[in-house]
Amino acid sequence: MRLGRVVGTVVATRKSARLDGAKLLLVEAMTAGGVPSGPVTLAVDAAQAGVGDTVLLLLEGRAAGAALGRRAAPVDAAVVGIVDAIETGS
Amino acid sequence: MRLGRVVGTVVATRKSARLDGAKLLLVEAMTAGGVPSGPVTLAVDAAQAGVGDTVLLLLEGRAAGAALGRRAAPVDAAVVGIVDAIETGS
Amino acid sequence: MRLGRVVGTVVATRKSARLDGAKLLLVEAMTAGGVPSGPVTLAVDAAQAGVGDTVLLLLEGRAAGAALGRRAAPVDAAVVGIVDAIETGS
Amino acid sequence: MRLGRVVGTVVATRKSARLDGAKLLLVEAMTAGGVPSGPVTLAVDAAQAGVGDTVLLLLEGRAAGAALGRRAAPVDAAVVGIVDAIETGS
Amino acid sequence: MRLGRVVGTVVATRKSARLDGAKLLLVEAMTAGGVPSGPVTLAVDAAQAGVGDTVLLLLEGRAAGAALGRRAAPVDAAVVGIVDAIETGS
Repeated sequence: MRLGRVVGTVVATRKSARLDGAKLLLVEAMTAGGVPSGPVTLAVDAAQAGVGDTVLLLLEGRAAGAALGRRAAPVDAAVVGIVDAIETGS
Repeated sequence: MRLGRVVGTVVATRKSARLDGAKLLLVEAMTAGGVPSGPVTLAVDAAQAGVGDTVLLLLEGRAAGAALGRRAAPVDAAVVGIVDAIETGS
Repeated sequence: MRLGRVVGTVVATRKSARLDGAKLLLVEAMTAGGVPSGPVTLAVDAAQAGVGDTVLLLLEGRAAGAALGRRAAPVDAAVVGIVDAIETGS
Repeated sequence: MRLGRVVGTVVATRKSARLDGAKLLLVEAMTAGGVPSGPVTLAVDAAQAGVGDTVLLLLEGRAAGAALGRRAAPVDAAVVGIVDAIETGS
Repeated sequence: MRLGRVVGTVVATRKSARLDGAKLLLVEAMTAGGVPSGPVTLAVDAAQAGVGDTVLLLLEGRAAGAALGRRAAPVDAAVVGIVDAIETGS
C-alpha cells in the first residue's frame, strides 16, 4: 500500500455496469512526512473516506477486488483504511 | 485507475485472435487539472469512448478482462468509464 | 498495452523448460509519434513479429499467458499484434 | 522483491475488516549499498520485523497474500524476511 | 522480462517458511547494450544462475511462481534463463 491523501472525487455516469454504486476518490500519494509524491490515482472507496483524509491506498486489482468483496470487479486501486497516526524513527 | 484523455486509435489487423473485435484506444494519462502526465497507453474500449473524451483508465489485466467480461483476454488496460465531472478541494 | 518497436532478439539456451520454443523479442516502448520512451522489454512473440515491426506490447503475465494460450507460463510480457496504422487527433 | 529498511509503523483503526490484526510497516526501498531509493511502501508484516531492520519487501498482492497464508487478503505488499547479509561482487 | 545482470546474493535466515530453500539473487536491470538501468531486484533463482551472469529477469509474482512450479509462492521476481546472445539491429 501507499500513504495517500484524498483530494477529490470523480463523477462518471457512463461506466462499466460492474462499477455501479462505487464511489471514486482522487488520491494523491504522499511521503511519511505528508509531502505529495507521485501521480494522482482514482481509487474505489472501501473505507468511508472523504476529501482531506489520510488513507491506506491499495494499488492492485486483485487485492482491491478483495477489499470490495468482489472477485471480478474492474478495479485496480482501493482506499482500504483511514490513517490515525504515523510513527517513524527507531 | 488513472484519469486519461483519448488521443487516438490504433489499427492492427495481424493480432492475437483473442483481441478480435476489440477497439484499441490511445489514452494519455492526465492530472486532476487536465495536464498530460505519464506515458500513452493502448487500452481496450469498454465504455464506448471516443477521441477527446476524459476517461477512467484501468491499468491491470485481470481487472481489464473483468471489465470486458472475459477472464482470459490478453489485455492489460481498459477504458471503463467516461468522466462527467472532477471535484477537487475540501 | 504499450506501443513498441522490435529492436532485437535474445538467445538463451539455459532457461526454464516452460519457455522452450518461445521466441524472445527485445521491444522498445515508443510514443504515438514513434519516439522511443521507457525501457527495453523482453517479450514472448505471439504475433509472428520481427525486427523493425511496430507492435502491441502487452505488459502483464496473466494476460501474456492468455495470449500464448498457456495459463501457467512464466512470462510477463508478450507481443500480441503488429500495428498497421496509428490515428491521432480529433 | 526489493531490499528495504523499516522506517516506521502506521495506525489505522478504521480499515477493511480483512486487514484486522495486520501490522503495517513503513518500508523504504534501498540499494544493495544501503542507500534509500524509491518511495516509501506500506507493507504488512509477515516476518516479525521491526523499525531499523533490513528486510525483503515483496511488492505484489497475490504473492503478499500467499506470504500471509490468505488468498483473498486486501494487501499489495508484505515484509517476508529479515536480511542477515548482502554479498556483492564476483 | 527484463535483461539483467546478477550482482550479488542475499542471506536471510528469518523469512517466510514458503521461501525455504530459495536462492535469492540481486539482479541489476540493464539495457540491450549492457548498461545498468533501473533498480536492483531481489529475484528467486530458477535457472542455476550465478554472479556475473546476464539473465532473463521475470518481474511478476504469478509468473515467477509458475517458473518455480509453485502456485502460491510468496515471490514477485525470478531469474528464468541465462542469456547466450543478444542480437540487435534490422
